Amino acid sequence: MSKIPVGILGATGAVGQRFISLVAGHPWFEITDLLASERSAGKRYGDAVKWILDTPLPRQIADMPVKLGRAGEADARVLFSALPSGRAKEMEPLFAAAGHYIFSNASAYRMAADVPLVITEVNPDHVAMVRVQQERRGWEGFIVCNANCTTTHLVGALHPLDLAFGIDKAFVATLQAASGAGYPGVPSLDLIDNVVPHDFGEEHKVETEPLKIMGGYADGAFIPADFKISAHCHRVPVIDGHFEAVSVELHSKASADDMVEAFRSYRRLPQELGLPSAPDPAVVVIDGMFRPQPRLDRMIGKGMATAVGRIRPCNLLDWRFSLLGHNTIRGAAGGSILNAELMVHQEYIGN
Amino acid sequence: MSKIPVGILGATGAVGQRFISLVAGHPWFEITDLLASERSAGKRYGDAVKWILDTPLPRQIADMPVKLGRAGEADARVLFSALPSGRAKEMEPLFAAAGHYIFSNASAYRMAADVPLVITEVNPDHVAMVRVQQERRGWEGFIVCNANCTTTHLVGALHPLDLAFGIDKAFVATLQAASGAGYPGVPSLDLIDNVVPHDFGEEHKVETEPLKIMGGYADGAFIPADFKISAHCHRVPVIDGHFEAVSVELHSKASADDMVEAFRSYRRLPQELGLPSAPDPAVVVIDGMFRPQPRLDRMIGKGMATAVGRIRPCNLLDWRFSLLGHNTIRGAAGGSILNAELMVHQEYIGN
Amino acid sequence: MSKIPVGILGATGAVGQRFISLVAGHPWFEITDLLASERSAGKRYGDAVKWILDTPLPRQIADMPVKLGRAGEADARVLFSALPSGRAKEMEPLFAAAGHYIFSNASAYRMAADVPLVITEVNPDHVAMVRVQQERRGWEGFIVCNANCTTTHLVGALHPLDLAFGIDKAFVATLQAASGAGYPGVPSLDLIDNVVPHDFGEEHKVETEPLKIMGGYADGAFIPADFKISAHCHRVPVIDGHFEAVSVELHSKASADDMVEAFRSYRRLPQELGLPSAPDPAVVVIDGMFRPQPRLDRMIGKGMATAVGRIRPCNLLDWRFSLLGHNTIRGAAGGSILNAELMVHQEYIGN
Amino acid sequence: MSKIPVGILGATGAVGQRFISLVAGHPWFEITDLLASERSAGKRYGDAVKWILDTPLPRQIADMPVKLGRAGEADARVLFSALPSGRAKEMEPLFAAAGHYIFSNASAYRMAADVPLVITEVNPDHVAMVRVQQERRGWEGFIVCNANCTTTHLVGALHPLDLAFGIDKAFVATLQAASGAGYPGVPSLDLIDNVVPHDFGEEHKVETEPLKIMGGYADGAFIPADFKISAHCHRVPVIDGHFEAVSVELHSKASADDMVEAFRSYRRLPQELGLPSAPDPAVVVIDGMFRPQPRLDRMIGKGMATAVGRIRPCNLLDWRFSLLGHNTIRGAAGGSILNAELMVHQEYIGN
Repeated sequence: MSKIPVGILGATGAVGQRFISLVAGHPWFEITDLLASERSAGKRYGDAVKWILDTPLPRQIADMPVKLGRAGEADARVLFSALPSGRAKEMEPLFAAAGHYIFSNASAYRMAADVPLVITEVNPDHVAMVRVQQERRGWEGFIVCNANCTTTHLVGALHPLDLAFGIDKAFVATLQAASGAGYPGVPSLDLIDNVVPHDFGEEHKVETEPLKIMGGYADGAFIPADFKISAHCHRVPVIDGHFEAVSVELHSKASADDMVEAFRSYRRLPQELGLPSAPDPAVVVIDGMFRPQPRLDRMIGKGMATAVGRIRPCNLLDWRFSLLGHNTIRGAAGGSILNAELMVHQEYIGN
Repeated sequence: MSKIPVGILGATGAVGQRFISLVAGHPWFEITDLLASERSAGKRYGDAVKWILDTPLPRQIADMPVKLGRAGEADARVLFSALPSGRAKEMEPLFAAAGHYIFSNASAYRMAADVPLVITEVNPDHVAMVRVQQERRGWEGFIVCNANCTTTHLVGALHPLDLAFGIDKAFVATLQAASGAGYPGVPSLDLIDNVVPHDFGEEHKVETEPLKIMGGYADGAFIPADFKISAHCHRVPVIDGHFEAVSVELHSKASADDMVEAFRSYRRLPQELGLPSAPDPAVVVIDGMFRPQPRLDRMIGKGMATAVGRIRPCNLLDWRFSLLGHNTIRGAAGGSILNAELMVHQEYIGN
Repeated sequence: MSKIPVGILGATGAVGQRFISLVAGHPWFEITDLLASERSAGKRYGDAVKWILDTPLPRQIADMPVKLGRAGEADARVLFSALPSGRAKEMEPLFAAAGHYIFSNASAYRMAADVPLVITEVNPDHVAMVRVQQERRGWEGFIVCNANCTTTHLVGALHPLDLAFGIDKAFVATLQAASGAGYPGVPSLDLIDNVVPHDFGEEHKVETEPLKIMGGYADGAFIPADFKISAHCHRVPVIDGHFEAVSVELHSKASADDMVEAFRSYRRLPQELGLPSAPDPAVVVIDGMFRPQPRLDRMIGKGMATAVGRIRPCNLLDWRFSLLGHNTIRGAAGGSILNAELMVHQEYIGN
Repeated sequence: MSKIPVGILGATGAVGQRFISLVAGHPWFEITDLLASERSAGKRYGDAVKWILDTPLPRQIADMPVKLGRAGEADARVLFSALPSGRAKEMEPLFAAAGHYIFSNASAYRMAADVPLVITEVNPDHVAMVRVQQERRGWEGFIVCNANCTTTHLVGALHPLDLAFGIDKAFVATLQAASGAGYPGVPSLDLIDNVVPHDFGEEHKVETEPLKIMGGYADGAFIPADFKISAHCHRVPVIDGHFEAVSVELHSKASADDMVEAFRSYRRLPQELGLPSAPDPAVVVIDGMFRPQPRLDRMIGKGMATAVGRIRPCNLLDWRFSLLGHNTIRGAAGGSILNAELMVHQEYIGN
């Protein structure tokens, strides 16, 4: 089988780089288009980008030309969007209207009524919404979003519990990595010997996105899940890896062992299908009072899994635990790549 | 009035250094005894200590001899204890039995039934317990404890709300500074590009100490406050300043403005008496979605006040807010110094 | 004596904030003008600025209006310039032509043939050049520059040695703080778990500015000093305080004790005059193999002195030593304030 | 061919862990013995160790028992020593006397007159000294040392230049990673918002070891190379990767292009033999004014190569450049593993 050509929107930014590093060498996809703003368009990618990953820029990508990021420039139908939110809001519909399949990391359309917000293990059925989306909007293409980086791993840990016991309430406090803000992102003067509370918009995303993702889909509509989340979000001096402290109230009571069992037995469609980027297991339970930690555990499952540990009773809700996940792999580029893999498998995307 | 002689137990450690830097130049106290372990005893203090504060070691202190830290060696009756908990458990009763007034930063006796655990603004009446303690134990001296660094600032913010509205529940997630673990403390390999969850003992302290402090005292017994706290504790790459994310459920409902008013009008005995180390105001409300921050706000009130900000509704309890305070000033040495000032004023300590 | 009114150009930036924090409360100067770009002009300063210092923004400054930074807007004749270099190149001559006395932290005119580049202890006689400058350029005002932050402390340590023994060669490798790049400056993704080599322009400044400063002035011309410097410059994850590793070849041979004596006896015009911001001593020799260190020693002499330590023989030149100084106090704003104090004393500036 | 059994001395420490992670999966070696102090002996390795690497502890290693680290306990003849220097001084000879082949990362015997200090690309001929060592000391086994981490990469870059042009002088200033001090090593209070000058012993190693390594071997004696090095050493807040700023004076003059060519064409015995851990190329020239950087470049050549960049003229010597290398891979465990591979190939070690 020949590979499916894909393009990267916003190819020179931090998430764009992560898309490139993950798609380069992908068994199904092949990068044919690198799209960016006027400042970079026309240059060789290696000259246009300030590469900030600790894995090397693949040589064949470095030699590709950067195209201007507008509809009509890309040869590939499948586009991974690493655009900033404002830019995504404007551009992604133009690309979708022009027939492109947009897998977006931007927040612009995550909560739109006809846009699937997908975590492959949780709500693969939501992708069916793209047919409604196409019809309503008159698009040949479509937009499918991945979740916010913090949401992704929170849902990664809540969903196994929800399946097993039901979630009634969840409290989450986050210690988020600097890479979540892109590059240049957070000034070093803000993160040396310091932590910075996040803006309230981030907290709102973490409180609302999970309900859409963990909710249902029927008759062309999403039905949000019915539980409550309270989020406190903070930025800490860490390169990659979001840490989240969680308390949950479960609908059916469960022991700590029950919870461990729910995490360990969690195997879902992407694992069953063996999608190329699917972590298996998707949730890794780590032992020890001092784990997970970002530097030590963020690459679990090649950065695609969610690490869970420190399960202990909570004075207010039922249980406390800690989780950790890579924010720019599973929490950004990797999430959209897995969404695309699913939709290839389900034949929304042909070759 | 001549100054009251005081000694420092554990004078060469991180908290011992902070005691020295705060007592040097104190209007009421004068350091006459520096006590430490056998490794340091007999040396000039400047030669025995590895000074790690960014304020200079006072020259007259540097030239003082270090005495061996055992009862009988100290001339001063008042001793500030910066001993590690295990050592404190063993030694502090020996000093108290020998007639010393111990103001301890150690956790060893904080929860003991006859030991006052005092935050001067909150429970100055608890110091009366020392008479019971002396009688029961047959001591001429006594032990009074300051609270855990995280507890101190949590109570600093909860107490104004409790006075005004009553607290029913409190959820707290902490981002704690490295200095809380003393020196050498946390290895740099653990805190560069990383955060480390705290041990569960710390969480237990933060869940129990506030109930003793915010509770009552009657007939020679402490009556714990009747509300619940759930704590998630973490260490972050910050030198000084504990950040805490808090959600509270109030007994009487209150608006955000009501809460600000409760914080702003909070003036208590230490402020009324004008005790030398009392911050005024004790709680500082800071504006802005991104404040407080450790590097910028830890020295508020010379490190003796608690900063509060980001008051916003909570999806699960009533309100969310963030607080910050200096962990080795108000949260350790400064807390005990203020306790001693109170007891001087109340004539438990004579000259 | 009433205070001399002064203004700050580029008042909202990192160095502008440092100027404000140092001039507020100054015995001779009073801030009357805060000038900034169009984005800030017209706003209350407290609303326009993102204050990043760990000392509080003085309330009376917060309430001042920001004026547009162009000639004709400032009432004060004395202006401290915290403009970025490109902007300084364009604007400072316009202000000088309009009669303002510019004390600039920018690099734009440091090496100009008729602009004094002054470190008050080293070349106070160079300020006489302003008369030549005024005549040649037809200005009523003038421009006097302070040195690059790294240059300032390097010269601070080399000058005592040059006076005592003569300098033939100097090798310097720097570990520079993030604040040297202003705000937002260096992205946190570049300085967490990382160091970044500096651009070659910084090295060029450190190799050339000292020769002008340590050189002579005669007949309206500067005569550069005749020795060679090689600089390797690097940025490290430190908020404030530049560390420099130096090797020197001396013209007359000297022992380590001779060098210590040269540093300790170094007292110059600003110290003799007792200028308000002059550190005394200007150079502080610190004992111990592991000192100086940025976090512990940057505030020596209120951030206006240079710390020197670790004097030991060099295998290639004569001696090695380490130095440290605050880069945004003495190395930026404080250097210009001291220059202004000198010129007030010498009656270049009247009230 | 069956694998050669090897053991790790000091298996629970930071360098011991690195040995394990590099030898696990090695094509020639198989770990049969994990040796450590009494505190760990008798435990399962996974229970005894606090694993601090960001690569997972191999499961089969975790389940191995820890043996007491004394001669007679190890089955393997080949032992990789990660002992601290004092312990190595005492123990390594006992193991060598008992017939073990010790590949040591410790500094204890590096400069001993009959112990080879080997970097495989530079002085593979020095290993012949082990026959002299065995005869003189009456040992059946032997000790071969790898160099100090900073020395290793300095020599990695100097040797190509020495071969091509000769080195007359070298000046080096280092920015060294925290992992060089082991675990717990440097306290976080020393490395947050700070840098710490290194002790003078480290500088002495960097000034002397290269002369032994780059020198000759004849008639049972080492002849040190005849040039001079001056080193300034510092610890910075970086996990892994030593950065070194170098100036060199070359014996035969060379252009920057000549130097690049010397680095690029540098292929030596380990590369020719294709030893399993040999990086190829051994030296990587990186473009760009801001590279190398520790976080981005330390894993070049799987952490076994030396990165070089920023080649530019020096005002005092001929050329300046920057280099970077992984301090616990090539600079510690990996260096000794490569030494062992060489000696297997040369049949000093049989199966």
